[in-house]
Amino acid sequence: MSPVIGHLDPDFVKVMEDLKGLLRAVFRTENEMTFPASGTGSSGMEIIAANLIEDGDEVIVGVNGAFGARFADCAERQGAKVHKVEAQWGHIIEPGAIETALKAARNPKLVAIVHAETSTGAHQPIEEISALAHRHGALMVVDAVTSLACVPVEVDRWNIDACFSCTQKGLSAPPGLAPVTFSAAAMDAVRKRRTKCRSWYLDIAMIGSYWGSERVYHHTAPITMIYALYEAARIVIEERLEERWRRHRTNAAALHAGLNAMGLKLVAQEGHRLPQLSTVAVPEGIDEAKVRAELLRLFNIEIAAGLGPFKGKVWRIGLMGESCRRENVTLLLGALEQILAGMGLELARGKALAAADAAYAAAAG
Amino acid sequence: MSPVIGHLDPDFVKVMEDLKGLLRAVFRTENEMTFPASGTGSSGMEIIAANLIEDGDEVIVGVNGAFGARFADCAERQGAKVHKVEAQWGHIIEPGAIETALKAARNPKLVAIVHAETSTGAHQPIEEISALAHRHGALMVVDAVTSLACVPVEVDRWNIDACFSCTQKGLSAPPGLAPVTFSAAAMDAVRKRRTKCRSWYLDIAMIGSYWGSERVYHHTAPITMIYALYEAARIVIEERLEERWRRHRTNAAALHAGLNAMGLKLVAQEGHRLPQLSTVAVPEGIDEAKVRAELLRLFNIEIAAGLGPFKGKVWRIGLMGESCRRENVTLLLGALEQILAGMGLELARGKALAAADAAYAAAAG
Repeated sequence: MSPVIGHLDPDFVKVMEDLKGLLRAVFRTENEMTFPASGTGSSGMEIIAANLIEDGDEVIVGVNGAFGARFADCAERQGAKVHKVEAQWGHIIEPGAIETALKAARNPKLVAIVHAETSTGAHQPIEEISALAHRHGALMVVDAVTSLACVPVEVDRWNIDACFSCTQKGLSAPPGLAPVTFSAAAMDAVRKRRTKCRSWYLDIAMIGSYWGSERVYHHTAPITMIYALYEAARIVIEERLEERWRRHRTNAAALHAGLNAMGLKLVAQEGHRLPQLSTVAVPEGIDEAKVRAELLRLFNIEIAAGLGPFKGKVWRIGLMGESCRRENVTLLLGALEQILAGMGLELARGKALAAADAAYAAAAG
Repeated sequence: MSPVIGHLDPDFVKVMEDLKGLLRAVFRTENEMTFPASGTGSSGMEIIAANLIEDGDEVIVGVNGAFGARFADCAERQGAKVHKVEAQWGHIIEPGAIETALKAARNPKLVAIVHAETSTGAHQPIEEISALAHRHGALMVVDAVTSLACVPVEVDRWNIDACFSCTQKGLSAPPGLAPVTFSAAAMDAVRKRRTKCRSWYLDIAMIGSYWGSERVYHHTAPITMIYALYEAARIVIEERLEERWRRHRTNAAALHAGLNAMGLKLVAQEGHRLPQLSTVAVPEGIDEAKVRAELLRLFNIEIAAGLGPFKGKVWRIGLMGESCRRENVTLLLGALEQILAGMGLELARGKALAAADAAYAAAAG
C-alpha cells in the first residue's frame, strides 16, 4: 500500500497544470481561469453564481426543464433578481424571448441557459443568445453539464463568459469535480464586486491563487479525483473532440431510428434533440418503473425516470461518453423490445435492429 | 473495464445508509443528520456556516491560528456579526475568554472553535466551552478536521451541535469529502431560518432529503469517494477508536521524546499538544525549506511549512491515521538528525532513537 501523493507535492502541481491545459482543449477556450472546482457538477453552477452575482443583480435565466429552474433558485439564493424566460418542457428557449427579457431588464448582469437540458433531452442553441446577451452588456453563462465532450461546446467561438460541467457524463470519469471556465470579462466582473463572495469554499479569487502560479493554499485538492479527471480528459483529446461528437451523433441516430421503428415516440422538440440523452414517451398502460427495474435486473442497463412534470411519463436514456457505443444501442433496443412485448404492449416487433443498422449504414456513407 | 455504479442504484443506496452508521460511530453520536458533504473538509465548514448563520446573527469564533481565522471569514461572508476571541498562536482558547464574549453578545447564535489547530498543533479542550455556549443559548460548532479519528471527538457527550471533518487525515481516505453531523437542536435552528440558505449546493434541507429515506435527487453523489470513505471508516471501527487514540498518543510521545533529545523545541503550549500534528521550532540559521526539500528528496517524507506568523519559523509534522506508525517516527528522527547535522547544526547526536525507544517502553508499561 502506498500513501496518496501530497496535494503540495511538486509532482502533483505538474498534474494540476497539465489538467488545466486539457480542460481548455475540451472547453475550446484560451481562458486562463479554467480548472475543476472541488465538488460535483452542481458546485460548478454554484461557483459561477456565487462569484458573478451580488445582492440585487438582475439575472435572466432560461427555464425549460429542471436544470434551468435549479439555476434560477441558485441565483436567487445569491441575491439576484431573477427574470425567468420559460418554455415548454422538451422545447428550446427562443432567442427572441431572451431578447424581450433583456430589453425589459434595467441592467442585466448575466444570462444563464442550459445547453443540454438533462430533464427533457432538448439541445439548446447558444450562439445567438450569447450575441444578444453581450449586445445588452450582460455576461453569458452556460450549463454544459450534459453537453461537454458529447456535442460541440465552443466557449471562445460562442463568446461564453462562464461555463461549467461535470466529470461523470461526457468526460466519463467518476462524479466529484466540476470543470469550470471563466472568461477575462467574467473575471473582471469578479474583481469589480462591491462585496465579498458569500462562499468561502468557492471564492474564485482564493481558488484562483491556489490553481494559479502563486499556489497559495486554500483547500486540499481532491487528489485522486483530479488524477481520474486528468486521465479522462486525456482520453477525450486522444479520441479528438470532432470524432467524439460524430460518435454521439451516429449512435443516437441509430437509437432513435430503432425506437421509432418499434413504435415508441421521442419527446424532445424535433430538430433540437440531444444525441447523448434521449427522452422517450412511456406508452399508455405501461408501468414505467417496472420497465426500468427489469432493464436493470435482466440486462444490467440503467435508464432514468422522468423528473417534475415528466415523472411517470418519460424515460431518459443516456448514451454519453464511453457508454455511447453501438453495443449499448443494440442491447437496449433488444432488451426494451423483449420487456415491453412481455408486458403485452402491441409494438412492431423485429424492426428496431434493422432500422438501427440502416442508420449506421447511412452514417458510414 | 466496468462502468461506475449509478448513484441511484439500490446497491449504492445501501452503501450510503451503512456509511451514515459508520460516521455516527466515528463521531460518537446518534445524530440522524450525519453524512459526508460532497466537497473537501473546508466544505464541511461552509455547510455548517451557510445553514446555521443568517444575516446579522452574532457568532463567537475562537481564533488562535489559521483555521480559526478561516471560520471567522467564512461566517462573516454568510452575514454574521463575528466576535473573535483571540489567543496567541500555539496556545488554546481559555473558556473564560469565551464566557466574556458570550456575556458581551446580545443574542449569540453559535460558538465556533477549532479542536485541533493544524497551523499551531494546539489541542483545544471543548467540553467546558460547549457548556458555556449552551448556558447562553448558543449552539456549539467544532472544527474537527485534524482531530477526528486521531484523538477523542465526543459529539454527543460534549454536546456539540455541529461538527465537521475531512477524509484525508485521521480517516486516511483520499481527500474529497467532508463528514459532518448536525444535532437535533442544530436542525431545529435550520428549520427556523427566516431566509433560505444562501448556498444551493450545500443546503442541508435538500441534502437531507437525498441522504434521508426520501432519496430525493439533489446532486450526484461522488460515488468512488464515498466507497473509499466507507472502507476507511470501516477500518477505523475495526481497529476501535480507543485503540486508535492510544496509538496516536504512543507514537507522538516517542516522536516528542526523540525531538527533545535531539535538542529541538516543540512550539505548542505544553499540556495541550496534539499527538497527530507536532509543531517544531526551526533552529536559528537553518534554511527550513531546504530541510523539507531534502526530507522529500532523500527519504520520501513530506512535512509541512509554517503558516502565517509561523511561516519560516516552524515545521509541522503530521502523524495521522494510517501514517501514525512506529516506523515513520523512527525514520523521521533518523532523517532529520542526518539532514540537520549535514547542515552544520550542533545537536545532540545519537540520542533521539534511544529516547523514542524509552517512550515506547514506558507506554507498553
